[in-house]
Amino acid sequence: MSFKSLKLTPGRLLATIHDTAEKFGAKGVWGPASTETGVCRLTLSDLDKGVRDWFIAETKGLGCEIKVDQIGNIFAIYPGKKENANALPTAIGSHLDTQPTGGRYDGIYGVLSGLEVLRTLKDNDFVPNYPIALIDWTNEEGARFPMSIMASSVWAQNIPLERAYKLESVTDAEPVTVEHELKRIGYLGETAASYLANPIKAHFEIHIEQGPILEDEDKLIGIVTGVQAYSWIKVKVFGKAQHTGTTPLAARSDALLAASKMIVKGNELAKKHNCLFSVGVLNLQPAVVNVIPEHVEFIIDVRHVKDDGLSVILEEIKSDFVSIVGDSGRALTVEFDHIYTSDAVKFHEDCISSVTESAEEIVGKEKARTIISGAGHDSCATSTRVPTSMIFIPSKDGVSHNPAEYSKPEEVHTGFEVLLNAVLKYDSKRTD
Amino acid sequence: MSFKSLKLTPGRLLATIHDTAEKFGAKGVWGPASTETGVCRLTLSDLDKGVRDWFIAETKGLGCEIKVDQIGNIFAIYPGKKENANALPTAIGSHLDTQPTGGRYDGIYGVLSGLEVLRTLKDNDFVPNYPIALIDWTNEEGARFPMSIMASSVWAQNIPLERAYKLESVTDAEPVTVEHELKRIGYLGETAASYLANPIKAHFEIHIEQGPILEDEDKLIGIVTGVQAYSWIKVKVFGKAQHTGTTPLAARSDALLAASKMIVKGNELAKKHNCLFSVGVLNLQPAVVNVIPEHVEFIIDVRHVKDDGLSVILEEIKSDFVSIVGDSGRALTVEFDHIYTSDAVKFHEDCISSVTESAEEIVGKEKARTIISGAGHDSCATSTRVPTSMIFIPSKDGVSHNPAEYSKPEEVHTGFEVLLNAVLKYDSKRTD
Repeated sequence: MSFKSLKLTPGRLLATIHDTAEKFGAKGVWGPASTETGVCRLTLSDLDKGVRDWFIAETKGLGCEIKVDQIGNIFAIYPGKKENANALPTAIGSHLDTQPTGGRYDGIYGVLSGLEVLRTLKDNDFVPNYPIALIDWTNEEGARFPMSIMASSVWAQNIPLERAYKLESVTDAEPVTVEHELKRIGYLGETAASYLANPIKAHFEIHIEQGPILEDEDKLIGIVTGVQAYSWIKVKVFGKAQHTGTTPLAARSDALLAASKMIVKGNELAKKHNCLFSVGVLNLQPAVVNVIPEHVEFIIDVRHVKDDGLSVILEEIKSDFVSIVGDSGRALTVEFDHIYTSDAVKFHEDCISSVTESAEEIVGKEKARTIISGAGHDSCATSTRVPTSMIFIPSKDGVSHNPAEYSKPEEVHTGFEVLLNAVLKYDSKRTD
Repeated sequence: MSFKSLKLTPGRLLATIHDTAEKFGAKGVWGPASTETGVCRLTLSDLDKGVRDWFIAETKGLGCEIKVDQIGNIFAIYPGKKENANALPTAIGSHLDTQPTGGRYDGIYGVLSGLEVLRTLKDNDFVPNYPIALIDWTNEEGARFPMSIMASSVWAQNIPLERAYKLESVTDAEPVTVEHELKRIGYLGETAASYLANPIKAHFEIHIEQGPILEDEDKLIGIVTGVQAYSWIKVKVFGKAQHTGTTPLAARSDALLAASKMIVKGNELAKKHNCLFSVGVLNLQPAVVNVIPEHVEFIIDVRHVKDDGLSVILEEIKSDFVSIVGDSGRALTVEFDHIYTSDAVKFHEDCISSVTESAEEIVGKEKARTIISGAGHDSCATSTRVPTSMIFIPSKDGVSHNPAEYSKPEEVHTGFEVLLNAVLKYDSKRTD
């Protein structure tokens, strides 16, 4: 029995996307239809608990064994023919949490496509050779607790569990920790959060592109071969609080003017190096209309397809920012705090080839292309430990992290088909 | 009898500044000496009531008649030779309230220099031709109740009394109104808050410069001939929230990049027009490290010595900001909300000439210069109704609205001498 002989249920996946959006966090109206809103479902919130409870009920109903690990990752394991302890599951994973201004697809599409894979197997009484684990990874977004790809990184042992536990929320009036919220919603599980103690064989993830490339080139499927490198660096500019009415321009040390020049310069450098630069967070002190800002902090997000390319532009940025403070005021200084670097990721040939064969069978060579992911995903964490690859479908206008995130119903369905076919191909080729 | 024959008491004014700072709101240590703190004395607070009670006791002790008006302004009237109702007092005024992060001099120096004038007259049994009113104006700072130069503007009937009464505090956990606090501390007086019902002949005010010009040029006295015009305008930039990792530069509508270009451009225009531009408040949404800001709001503070000069640069700023959004993204727009414009103020020749003659006698021509005030003061309100001028003394490093505000003891004393001499000159020239 192969993919081609399976009876599919077109429309069910999209209906599930819309039903769960409606029940668990619909927010941000962008059109007249009831489905035209985004979703705000911050990780470990009551809404997240709601969708997790629903997810477990659904997968249990399909015959899955459920494991919740110490960082709240949920593993729903659909049985395969080989049931011994060495028959590691092939995994499909993504995340059910969203940004505060999130859409209906980012992350959610990946988990619910995995659910549709399991539902389809069940409908067809299809038993794969090996178990299939469907995973909801905790806090991929890093919006409520400021560390993205958090819990898949803990599972991969790239981040210590204790460090994740202590993270404090930035979206609550009274900050709470990850550990506190895991306990509060009942998702601090007993399974070790570890790829060694709770292993999988491989990880597949389907996701919206979140960029405009597939749409612009009229492609249906992106075969993701890797993820670009990126760094987040906090830039702190120190000037002097001065009265805006009484201080001549030449006597000022205006931290916001210097920061503004840096943001403009960073964009110029990104253009020159054919890579990406942005600032999404900026705070200033004292924040009074008639006082020149003394202290401005902002976080730069710089991305390049290659690690060495990223290093080169970061050095140039730092050097130019230092020049800007030298030229811009009497008493300005700048400091850099490295927050996070994600190295460029190259996905595994075994997984990429399963996706490629699947995509070419379903949409044809001309409607698929290889692509480098601009964003980080849970697959970045899993790929440090197990063979991994991803599938992209088009995003309308490249919009993401926005309520108006949208992919067409046929794109949503085609992506699911490619995922199902790829996972079954991988399952059939396994010889372990 | 003239200024030259008066016996002065050097040191007493500075001692009073430090004593009252110590008793009524000392805060913000900036050096090892006990006098090296700032003052936090928000208007109509218990500390403000304390200094008001002290002020009335001191001036009553000198033989002053006390009037408290409906908005809490205190008029302490020292008798002159002409005591009929038409012999309007020459006034010396400023304010005893401070910013939350205020120093010991801003406003306070003006009122206490006036007190030292009255003490000196009393010590010398000197009776001026006309009464001298020493005024403590309520809420000049606008820090607790968000309207600066509030009660002198009510007195000048430029602001309705009822509007001031209804202002709500922004520094209390439970907001209270001006009227509530006036009643609570016992300073809602019976005298009409009106330049018509409670008139003065002229208004003199001494103040720290709050800027670096006098210090940089080694001058002791600034003869203030006017106050520059300024406008506050809220600029709203609307772009598109997009993923920082997946959106090519050319496909972005980055509201913060556009805002940064505007801040840089505004400063360039200010340099070209020889005026001032700054941004002290800036907020962005959604404020997430990996989302391109969709909406940025900031307030521009633009100042020019002439009203028409201000209009010209404001038009240029708006036009250039519109060009910036046109050049910077696919879907950017900009809007402007006018918040406040303070017209340029030209002080009165009679008062300016008294100050000029006084300053030249005391410090010599080479140590005085004319200057335009960058900041607003109670004198801006009084000058709309009566002849007014101001005297500045140097501010160390131009620092103000900061605990470390400082002027040297000899500068503090010299300023007082210039004030005393100027008021006596004005008094002696009056023929009404």
